Amino acid sequence: MSRLIISALLALLVPLCGLARPQDDKVLKVSRTVEGAEDIFAAERQLWLLKAEQSRPELIKTRLAPQRAVVAVKDSAAFQGWRYEDAGDPGQLLYKRSFKQVKEITLDFGTHVTGYFSLHTKVLDRTPDAPVRIKLMFGELPAEMNIPLDPWQGVMSRGWMQDEYLTFETLDEYITLPRRVAFRYVRIELIGASPYFDFAIDDAFVTAVSSVGEPAVALSDDCPEIIRRIESVSNRTLHECMQTVFEDGPKRDHRLWVGDLYLQSLANRHSFRNFELVKRCLYLFAGLSSRDGLVMSNIMEHPQPHAQIGSLCLTYSLLFNSTLLEYLKDTGDYTTARELWKVAERQTREALSYVGEDWIFDKDRKGEYIWLFFDWRDGLDVDTAMQGATIFALRQTWELASLLGCTDQVRDYPAIAEKMSRAARQKLYDRKRGVFLSGKDAQLSVLSQTWMIKAGVLGAKEGAAAIRNTLSDGGAVMPGTPYGTHYLIDAMLLCGLADEAKAYLTDYWGGMLLKGADTFWEAYDPLNEYITPYGTIAENSACHAWSCTPTYFIHEYPEIFQK
Amino acid sequence: MSRLIISALLALLVPLCGLARPQDDKVLKVSRTVEGAEDIFAAERQLWLLKAEQSRPELIKTRLAPQRAVVAVKDSAAFQGWRYEDAGDPGQLLYKRSFKQVKEITLDFGTHVTGYFSLHTKVLDRTPDAPVRIKLMFGELPAEMNIPLDPWQGVMSRGWMQDEYLTFETLDEYITLPRRVAFRYVRIELIGASPYFDFAIDDAFVTAVSSVGEPAVALSDDCPEIIRRIESVSNRTLHECMQTVFEDGPKRDHRLWVGDLYLQSLANRHSFRNFELVKRCLYLFAGLSSRDGLVMSNIMEHPQPHAQIGSLCLTYSLLFNSTLLEYLKDTGDYTTARELWKVAERQTREALSYVGEDWIFDKDRKGEYIWLFFDWRDGLDVDTAMQGATIFALRQTWELASLLGCTDQVRDYPAIAEKMSRAARQKLYDRKRGVFLSGKDAQLSVLSQTWMIKAGVLGAKEGAAAIRNTLSDGGAVMPGTPYGTHYLIDAMLLCGLADEAKAYLTDYWGGMLLKGADTFWEAYDPLNEYITPYGTIAENSACHAWSCTPTYFIHEYPEIFQK
Repeated sequence: MSRLIISALLALLVPLCGLARPQDDKVLKVSRTVEGAEDIFAAERQLWLLKAEQSRPELIKTRLAPQRAVVAVKDSAAFQGWRYEDAGDPGQLLYKRSFKQVKEITLDFGTHVTGYFSLHTKVLDRTPDAPVRIKLMFGELPAEMNIPLDPWQGVMSRGWMQDEYLTFETLDEYITLPRRVAFRYVRIELIGASPYFDFAIDDAFVTAVSSVGEPAVALSDDCPEIIRRIESVSNRTLHECMQTVFEDGPKRDHRLWVGDLYLQSLANRHSFRNFELVKRCLYLFAGLSSRDGLVMSNIMEHPQPHAQIGSLCLTYSLLFNSTLLEYLKDTGDYTTARELWKVAERQTREALSYVGEDWIFDKDRKGEYIWLFFDWRDGLDVDTAMQGATIFALRQTWELASLLGCTDQVRDYPAIAEKMSRAARQKLYDRKRGVFLSGKDAQLSVLSQTWMIKAGVLGAKEGAAAIRNTLSDGGAVMPGTPYGTHYLIDAMLLCGLADEAKAYLTDYWGGMLLKGADTFWEAYDPLNEYITPYGTIAENSACHAWSCTPTYFIHEYPEIFQK
Repeated sequence: MSRLIISALLALLVPLCGLARPQDDKVLKVSRTVEGAEDIFAAERQLWLLKAEQSRPELIKTRLAPQRAVVAVKDSAAFQGWRYEDAGDPGQLLYKRSFKQVKEITLDFGTHVTGYFSLHTKVLDRTPDAPVRIKLMFGELPAEMNIPLDPWQGVMSRGWMQDEYLTFETLDEYITLPRRVAFRYVRIELIGASPYFDFAIDDAFVTAVSSVGEPAVALSDDCPEIIRRIESVSNRTLHECMQTVFEDGPKRDHRLWVGDLYLQSLANRHSFRNFELVKRCLYLFAGLSSRDGLVMSNIMEHPQPHAQIGSLCLTYSLLFNSTLLEYLKDTGDYTTARELWKVAERQTREALSYVGEDWIFDKDRKGEYIWLFFDWRDGLDVDTAMQGATIFALRQTWELASLLGCTDQVRDYPAIAEKMSRAARQKLYDRKRGVFLSGKDAQLSVLSQTWMIKAGVLGAKEGAAAIRNTLSDGGAVMPGTPYGTHYLIDAMLLCGLADEAKAYLTDYWGGMLLKGADTFWEAYDPLNEYITPYGTIAENSACHAWSCTPTYFIHEYPEIFQK
């Protein structure tokens, strides 16, 4: 997930359409400067970071060759207006020919790969006497490869684009681009060569990296083909994001976010089952929490692990607790869960500090902005969703305490959750319409319903009705991302809407498949192929962690999805 | 020196003006394929290369800071139409400011430097969350920095141009461009940055490299200022070219040429006195000579030392002998000279195989093309110069044999030189006009005279007349490079034309100084600032070995130049 989301939550005056654009000057509002505060985890912090380091995986390296050479075709019927056509075997078209004759070629690796690109040059004639310069352009999708990048229209850094130059004087050897790239296609262009010698690019490959290999969980034999394909692409998405942390996207932003981690850990349960990596990420978030103990929304690893300044997002902080609970259930690792319990307790305590005597979460209670992310759909009102998310967090944290035998520390949580539930039903629920509404404008949104269902405020029958009533209302605010859509599917399944869940999942993620997805995308609107919050579709991530959860649903509910 | 010169010698049908353009298909003609021949130095070759390796210098590394920031000004009165104006202190203009505000800056290192460029980034605000991309452009001269490079008009590789991109995600650290660059100016441009953090480039420097430090030879106290400045810039030129070999140019071509080495070794005698590097280069040429024992014209060091295929140039092969002779006189290193004597003897023997019964060197004698380089002035006829160069080589080799006590192996050289001198005077000298002419069109050129003077065919009086007669003839072919001009100054001094030599040297090299040279240039025509054999002045080398010889003349003839 990107911080761009922040602006979606701020831009409440913008019409309710599209995705939010980042608004730089507002980002600083979420900065959290607690330098003066006492460091409540001073005694544990270094130990936690050491444990995170001890769980750092060795990456699995796999040498992958391009599958074919391709040519770009502009085609209004293709996704985002571009597709690639087969051109033939790289062996014939590239490796055996003078690159001064080839001049430019695009190679297709056949699927999404993340790693280090290498090529080998071979002198064909005379002696290299001048630097060769080539330009490399890596892309996940055909349009990204072929639309003009400059002058740059993107909102985020031009540096995310994966076009690079190599200048080299020595040939007959392998050259590896130092930058890790995430791509399916690479275009190689000759920029400079000497008239006094000739050469070929006689090999090209990627050293793909991931902390996982093949999935450890199989589908039933009679699983429908479309589900099988969705599961496979989900797993590939997760595979690509599982590096030395669970990254949000290997092309962009290369980092660990709590919200993405929660969903990835659920998908990991039913695919790669690498729980050591979950443990590492939990320890990183604990070790890098703020001095007053709050889990920051995201962490970067290099040059040493550190949280992003100004990245506190309370909805995400609370999902630390759910991730820890699921980790404990998956592994039985009570040592880690006990050690990190105090971090979990600190997150719910923070949420409760926003709950007033009316038992309603009030984001304005402290008179300062807090970031509450649920989706980046522009104009989404989050008040009701946050009431649900807080109740959900209390219940999850109580369950964790129960497993750990430390409920005495949170003995009031069940009663608070109950009071917050009752307050929600009284103040936020429109009994007549059978839906939850949110904010001063009584906004109807899918996410208000889903979080009230996750919180248990609505039971199966009322929940199912709320979802149906919302989806059938043309004015309701829909999720704008696969992240929000995950919680809709989740809520449907909790309410027994099995057929609807299966149909929605198949339509939404299957829709990406039909449009050529090798991995699932960060931004996807079935009705708008050009959706982007970044000013250019080229900056979208086409392999994004929060899109990988179909594999979770498919395996968690085999009787629904695999029949 | 570049192989482009080849085409100058081939393009005899082109009008006698300008410099030659490379003609790719002709380059192969000079290939020398002697794979089948017996390797006459098989027993010594590896030992010679080992000795070369043992003499490989450790480079001296010097950290140099930029002197100022500058702004480019288009000015038709400036050399090649561009100059830089002082903009102020990099500390104020760059290091202490947001680079997102600076966006672009040009730094001036105050003189020519060769080495590795580093910069340091410092985060000013928030957390780096996206790759920064910057473009670096390094140049020796203002115009090279400011004329458009693309679409590329150059004849040689676009890769010689020193524009590079850096993409990096980690800040607060030093980044060093892997490529060695040769420059005075560097322009830094911001290509991509995140809106979510800010940073400065708070340091920039070059780790300059050379195998030498300061010159070991001082000028007389009453040396004229202009001579003092020419000597200083000559020394800087040589300094920059003295790396792990004597390079022809640190920007381009990065390699060791025999002809350049000969002139550099003379300049080195009177400046850095690093004779170990001369020794290394002599052993490299010996070890990498062709299987039939001919010294190739140029050698590249990486990935391991090797000669350029097709690079035999007999005039240069013969200068190996002169370089060895001068090395022996400078050092008294009889061991090396004795070891390499057989290589020297092989070069003159090769030249003699082109001499017919008429005692004239005939380049067509074997029915195949041979490359005889004296200058790259388009249309220069080399027949007479080659007669002189052969006689000169015989005399130099005889002198070497005399010092080594092995004249029995070349006992006929004095007699042959005498016969060739007599033949030259009979057949090539126009007694009436007092000049040597060359070729079927009886071409009058400066270089025919200079080589006959070096050969001793003309004595001082006749030589002085020949030079004067030629220079005063508006139709005479002039040298087109500082390389050819060196031999003119040399000949003037041999003939006692002290005043003319001093004036010519001061005008020619001083002319570059007046036009802003920090180091002396590869191509220089006082009448044409845009002279280039490469299609674009941007590809010219502005620090070129064969331009460094004023320091030799100034110290070799102190009574002439330093008074």
